[in-house]
Amino acid sequence: MTQFTLQCDTKVIFGQGVRGLGREASALGGRVLVCYGGGSVARNGILGAVLGELKEAGVSAIEFPGIEPNPRHTTVNRGAALCREEGVGAVIAVGGGSVIDCAKLIAAAACCEEDAWDLVTRRAPIERALPVLTVLTIAATGSEMDAGAVITNWETHEKYGIFDAHLQPRVSFLEPRFTYTVSPFQTACGAADILSHVIDKYYFTLNEKLAFAEGVMETLMRTVVKFAPIAMREPENYEARANLMWAASWALNGFLSPRAGATSCHAMEHELSAYYDIAHGLGLAILMPRWLRYCCDEKRAPQIKQFGVNVFGLDASTSDMVGANAAIEAFESFLYETLGLSRTLSEIGIGEEHFCEMAKNAARGGGIDGFKLLTEEDVMAIYRMCLLPDAPL
Amino acid sequence: MTQFTLQCDTKVIFGQGVRGLGREASALGGRVLVCYGGGSVARNGILGAVLGELKEAGVSAIEFPGIEPNPRHTTVNRGAALCREEGVGAVIAVGGGSVIDCAKLIAAAACCEEDAWDLVTRRAPIERALPVLTVLTIAATGSEMDAGAVITNWETHEKYGIFDAHLQPRVSFLEPRFTYTVSPFQTACGAADILSHVIDKYYFTLNEKLAFAEGVMETLMRTVVKFAPIAMREPENYEARANLMWAASWALNGFLSPRAGATSCHAMEHELSAYYDIAHGLGLAILMPRWLRYCCDEKRAPQIKQFGVNVFGLDASTSDMVGANAAIEAFESFLYETLGLSRTLSEIGIGEEHFCEMAKNAARGGGIDGFKLLTEEDVMAIYRMCLLPDAPL
Repeated sequence: MTQFTLQCDTKVIFGQGVRGLGREASALGGRVLVCYGGGSVARNGILGAVLGELKEAGVSAIEFPGIEPNPRHTTVNRGAALCREEGVGAVIAVGGGSVIDCAKLIAAAACCEEDAWDLVTRRAPIERALPVLTVLTIAATGSEMDAGAVITNWETHEKYGIFDAHLQPRVSFLEPRFTYTVSPFQTACGAADILSHVIDKYYFTLNEKLAFAEGVMETLMRTVVKFAPIAMREPENYEARANLMWAASWALNGFLSPRAGATSCHAMEHELSAYYDIAHGLGLAILMPRWLRYCCDEKRAPQIKQFGVNVFGLDASTSDMVGANAAIEAFESFLYETLGLSRTLSEIGIGEEHFCEMAKNAARGGGIDGFKLLTEEDVMAIYRMCLLPDAPL
Repeated sequence: MTQFTLQCDTKVIFGQGVRGLGREASALGGRVLVCYGGGSVARNGILGAVLGELKEAGVSAIEFPGIEPNPRHTTVNRGAALCREEGVGAVIAVGGGSVIDCAKLIAAAACCEEDAWDLVTRRAPIERALPVLTVLTIAATGSEMDAGAVITNWETHEKYGIFDAHLQPRVSFLEPRFTYTVSPFQTACGAADILSHVIDKYYFTLNEKLAFAEGVMETLMRTVVKFAPIAMREPENYEARANLMWAASWALNGFLSPRAGATSCHAMEHELSAYYDIAHGLGLAILMPRWLRYCCDEKRAPQIKQFGVNVFGLDASTSDMVGANAAIEAFESFLYETLGLSRTLSEIGIGEEHFCEMAKNAARGGGIDGFKLLTEEDVMAIYRMCLLPDAPL
């Protein structure tokens, strides 16, 4: 029986630039921390628009630049200290998932004396957080409309996700035009990330699903398959950028299946990017088809076949096993040919030197529960499959 | 360019009965008004469960029974007066759309001295409202997850909808089992109402739509077409009831297209039920196919044909006009044969005696803007088409 509790109270302002940001920020406090990454938002004018809106509303902005991809807990600590020093009332993230995730934890860490890593690992509870506003610059993680964040401890090579209602953004500005400057490669990584949320967390499961929600998942995946290549070819195609952006937010805002899923590929990918600092979407793109191949058996083949039929338009009249194989091939062709992402870990310079530790960590606590329970040995086998273009089982 | 602002912050507790209702109500005040309708909720045990939960949490419940279908502004006034007398802190609606809509206006009217009709007609602003909780007993209006309400003034035969952020329910309990006792006729009316929200408000438009949202609309309509007949045949089929319930909430919670649509059929139906007090879903079922036939021309046929192809699985290879006609026929067959709803106004004892006034009122203010702008004469023609099984154009 389907049971869940859903609350997704982020206010979304879509397709309207940052109009209204000053008013929203002003209502939350006269002083805000403005977080961003490597400076592309300064070059493409988005930061200027944000600062202009704030200035006009009489809100004073403390800038916190330099948030890295796969953001570190040490960066969170620096941001939180700055919030306390400056007495800010709200945190504004201008960027993608990394900046938003970091800003969420800064907002929580600013309200306590704990080290951010203790909040991420739940050694210390998050009791409150400053309100967070986001200005999204890439369609990918869905962090703009959920209560989750992923932070990396570079010293220990640990990358953990945390989900806490205090981290839900208050207001998110989703302006598809702000993603016009996202490169084809990053657009492809974002598309892989969006697909992975549906695939990894909700769609592939032996648990009961609501038919309506499953239909929406397939609609969402078809949307990404259709519009990601268009956005790569025509970066200023509003329709493509708008569809990707809205699909990204809805892939993880709780609607598709408010029960948290298993995220097998995410667990395996977090190890990859904690050791190698690669783009999250790229790691997922390499892992997902191998994971499906590894899981595919008589019990699971029908769901994999259905994915091929309803997302890639494959022939429904085949046997389950033939259909499942065709689905995985169609998915590979989309990821590695249409999106042009790397097919193997070897291609991006990753060998098996850390596989043992990574597999151990990914499968900690009794394995990764999901479409199929994965032990340390299973994870090792899947990592090894990622080294070769066509890893035999 | 797609632009919208969306905030849907109702907390949904799905498939868990009324577990937690006492805690939620207690947090909102120690004294609540419990609104319901004709007493079916007392007979089927839902009211008992609600009152038990409240008692256990130490919340005192003032009962307000007898809310009628197509609720009256005079009922709202009585409920609001009771709230003020009893000093209640929150309003709980136990029922379907009529009870919820009435409870929303009670919650607003309780906070001011105005007559409820002045709030509905916007002669007086809604400045605040008591928090509203809902316990849903039929999948239909979507009122459990939106900020709208429809109230009737029986003296003047006016039925108006109002949409105001203060009316958004704080928490809604969606328990599919609570709809097991909904009759096949009411289940069919609910299904027609759900479809009407998508059809009338979002799907049929010449305005730009986000492809992703359009795909979700079609998924939602397919869900209703599939599960409504199952729920009619097997009233205790959880899967069918759960899919209908969730689809109903999402048909109107702002996600499908946060920009308010035109609701042509709703405007025409509100007149019908303001004069004749018929079931809203039944009135819509009679109107919708006639409206599509009336609107169908070269410019609009492609969208109507797409409806047939993507919702009813019709042949995509026909011409637009042939496909559009086939789509309307499939829709009629679903409403009048599969769901068994009445095909004509004549069958339910409605003649043309009030058509003039009704058309004038429905088209007030320059006509009904929507898929096609409808003047008073157009509305008259559509009403007349509803008298005969196959009204020629």
